[in-house]
Amino acid sequence: MKILVTNDDGIFSPGLVALARTAQRFGQVRVVAPDGEQSAVGQSITIQRPLQYHRMHLDSLDAYRVNGTPADCVALGLYRWEGADLVLSGINLGSNLGHDVWHSGTVGAAKQAMLLGVPAAAFSLALGKDEPEFEPLLVYVERVIRMLLEDQGPKLVNVNLPQNPRGIRWTHQSVRAYNGQVLESKDPIGRKHYWFTATHLTEPEEETDRWAMEQGLISLTPLRLDLTDESWLRRMRQNDQEEK
Amino acid sequence: MKILVTNDDGIFSPGLVALARTAQRFGQVRVVAPDGEQSAVGQSITIQRPLQYHRMHLDSLDAYRVNGTPADCVALGLYRWEGADLVLSGINLGSNLGHDVWHSGTVGAAKQAMLLGVPAAAFSLALGKDEPEFEPLLVYVERVIRMLLEDQGPKLVNVNLPQNPRGIRWTHQSVRAYNGQVLESKDPIGRKHYWFTATHLTEPEEETDRWAMEQGLISLTPLRLDLTDESWLRRMRQNDQEEK
Repeated sequence: MKILVTNDDGIFSPGLVALARTAQRFGQVRVVAPDGEQSAVGQSITIQRPLQYHRMHLDSLDAYRVNGTPADCVALGLYRWEGADLVLSGINLGSNLGHDVWHSGTVGAAKQAMLLGVPAAAFSLALGKDEPEFEPLLVYVERVIRMLLEDQGPKLVNVNLPQNPRGIRWTHQSVRAYNGQVLESKDPIGRKHYWFTATHLTEPEEETDRWAMEQGLISLTPLRLDLTDESWLRRMRQNDQEEK
Repeated sequence: MKILVTNDDGIFSPGLVALARTAQRFGQVRVVAPDGEQSAVGQSITIQRPLQYHRMHLDSLDAYRVNGTPADCVALGLYRWEGADLVLSGINLGSNLGHDVWHSGTVGAAKQAMLLGVPAAAFSLALGKDEPEFEPLLVYVERVIRMLLEDQGPKLVNVNLPQNPRGIRWTHQSVRAYNGQVLESKDPIGRKHYWFTATHLTEPEEETDRWAMEQGLISLTPLRLDLTDESWLRRMRQNDQEEK
């Protein structure tokens, strides 16, 4: 079994090593990850310059760093390591819920794997006030890896882990409200600039990813790659028919 | 009517000006676009540094440049220009079909607008051997803008324009095959590096975006923001029920 592991926090993130170590219980593991932080780059790929792929020492793992995005790491990693059975992304420091799914590099890596025909899961951990503890969560990570390897569920899953889970729930991506916000500020020279940040959304819709995490449940959301809005497509095609 | 116009080719692209000029027939237009090329950055947003927003001279349009991605331009542009009715992205130099929809900054900008509750369309033009000619296509661009402003169709549309269209078709995103490819090469110093490129896919599925363009038809694909794979979600929830 060949398992490729990546993330968007960068190759030095403790969440990456925790995930790679867990994956090793199932087979051969290779880490291919960005050489710096690549948060919120979504499924970006780099096409304006070439990429480099360098072996590096990382906790005695088989590891490579790439000067690109998480999706770059997956595309290049799968090219350099043919026949990989599974791609795992994370464990991200911070949850990826609702509209984060659009911007997340962690999820972007998993989507890129699925585009290339390889099953994948993205793992993200809710941050609290204390240092994140991965150890108690690895049993759940194992369970997801097993599901993917044994082909007993969806091939592309967004997994969000609360700090002390009290169960697991299959969920829907929450889409009702966007949590992005703009903050105006000034740089040290006095020039105006703008930061993006996120606000906390309350009252999430029931049975969504956001809702599950607020209940202390691990959220598993099956994702799709086809972006077509079928209901609108049917309506517009019907309109065209009627006009003829 | 307030219409925000952006793109991913950068603020100096002729496709952007052609789109903005067409939009002016419908109301007040503001251009907010990346200060450099931002192809294939998808729906990336910039969260590790602040952004700047500068007024600039561009063909006597009301125009601002942003040192960020297309999605950044939309988020910041809508924050600075409240109550915009519509966001238009493009006209991209090159089509955005099938899996390009995942990586495209042009489409990413339109998706970001819809996330923020504003209807949007992404426009992309197939490139041939000759210089692109926008003029003959603007009547079709107008038709899409009218549909969005009159609320007579989907709120998020991916529009692809062949050079000499012989009709219009509502289509499905083609998802069967991925056209990404890796090329190995060396830099001038002799170090190995890797470029991403795309291959041409033949035999696209009927009634998809790719198929329509091969037929010389303008492709209109309605897009959705909810990434949940509902059929898998139903199956997994049913499994959970049965185990109880």
